[in-house]
Amino acid sequence: MIIIGEKINATRKAIAEAVEARDEQHIIATAVEQVAAGADYLDVNGGNPVAEKEVANMRWLVELVQTHTEAALCIDSANVEAMDAGLAAARSKPILNSISLESDRLEAFLPLLAKYECMVIGLCMSDEGTPAGVADRVERAAKLIEHFTAAGRQVAEIIIDPCFFPASAEPASVAHVCGAMAEIRKQFPEVHLGGGLSNSSYGLPNRRLVNLAMLSLATYHGLDAPIIDPCVRDMVPLARAAEVLSGADEWCVNYVAAHRAGKL
Amino acid sequence: MIIIGEKINATRKAIAEAVEARDEQHIIATAVEQVAAGADYLDVNGGNPVAEKEVANMRWLVELVQTHTEAALCIDSANVEAMDAGLAAARSKPILNSISLESDRLEAFLPLLAKYECMVIGLCMSDEGTPAGVADRVERAAKLIEHFTAAGRQVAEIIIDPCFFPASAEPASVAHVCGAMAEIRKQFPEVHLGGGLSNSSYGLPNRRLVNLAMLSLATYHGLDAPIIDPCVRDMVPLARAAEVLSGADEWCVNYVAAHRAGKL
Repeated sequence: MIIIGEKINATRKAIAEAVEARDEQHIIATAVEQVAAGADYLDVNGGNPVAEKEVANMRWLVELVQTHTEAALCIDSANVEAMDAGLAAARSKPILNSISLESDRLEAFLPLLAKYECMVIGLCMSDEGTPAGVADRVERAAKLIEHFTAAGRQVAEIIIDPCFFPASAEPASVAHVCGAMAEIRKQFPEVHLGGGLSNSSYGLPNRRLVNLAMLSLATYHGLDAPIIDPCVRDMVPLARAAEVLSGADEWCVNYVAAHRAGKL
Repeated sequence: MIIIGEKINATRKAIAEAVEARDEQHIIATAVEQVAAGADYLDVNGGNPVAEKEVANMRWLVELVQTHTEAALCIDSANVEAMDAGLAAARSKPILNSISLESDRLEAFLPLLAKYECMVIGLCMSDEGTPAGVADRVERAAKLIEHFTAAGRQVAEIIIDPCFFPASAEPASVAHVCGAMAEIRKQFPEVHLGGGLSNSSYGLPNRRLVNLAMLSLATYHGLDAPIIDPCVRDMVPLARAAEVLSGADEWCVNYVAAHRAGKL
């Protein structure tokens, strides 16, 4: 499993302020705590309405985070220049987060997949909007994989995000996402499945509980690259336990190793 | 969801000693804490190798527990006289735990289903031993339902236990149990699905994590009558969260009510 820590994201107020103020200590602490909790990659998003500023923010974040942790980076931006700058600055092989089937986004970002040795998150959004049901997600995943491999990436470098919706608003979407992940895994055994599953709990109280349950379900159905807050109590340990139940952790090797390392 | 608290079971040393010593305070405390944590039913097992003693233990347990809590009882014994005595002593409609397809057990216990207004747990064991795969579990469930309804119970009074095996020893059994529950639910929409899912974590460290993940998975696949330790941190709250994701908790009514009651 690839665990992507979600916390260094300027859509969170404290991070936006730290980025704006160039508060190194706050960002470093947020990076270090996520790695200690089990993050393999750290998402970095320095979002700013002014494109020029976002490029500068991204460069600063990438340099800062990779200087102070061993984790690789997940470069997260809707701005193609900021993405380009982030990928260029990354020392370890980064993840590009993300490219959807929306044609303007696809056209703008695809060249980066030829330019950089990177992984990429493919989001099942298109010009028609959000995906509906299982088949639509599977079709969109196949299209994303086709585009990304044509641009030079391997299937094993692709992470498909099936689009997690709030369960309170769209209860059927849970079964759609789970069914789609199982089917995508069957058709593309090497692809990764991931995404921001905490969307599932949007609008509900005690979101941690819904996120833990969703992480268990999604892992059982093939998820292996979640974007989560690894510092939330039990989140990473539960992912490891769910991998035992999904069969992905053969002979429970990773689970027992995590236990021995005091990480459960 | 029907939550059955598993703790008053004489296979646990502290309970065996309390039963032997007629330590009322220990049993009452174990009953009260489970109800406070969300148990709807309390399993009572006063197991003793001497049948005569088990009958006396069961009568004592049933009287004691129902005098001090509002919870109904799940009468748990391999001894038909102890079961009979427990069901006779129960004031609220109890659960008979359990009857399998093993012919001697079936023959001995079925008359109790005609004699008492009770629910019943049907365990997917037979003279051929433990179940293998999905189809075998579904077939055995159908046979149990046939026997129990012929003996006078309604489908809605039956809880099928698909047999949870240790995931570490039999990883494929997780998918078998989940697949079987989904199929049984489809064929018998009114039947309950339950059982002792903590078997899933047998042999692994940090069993709580594996049990939490298994509870999420099983609930998604139709489980609605788990036998659990409700006092384990997050166990009942996670069951409620998983019901949101499975769609069983329409409009999240139970989840939000549990939140408002401070039970999450």
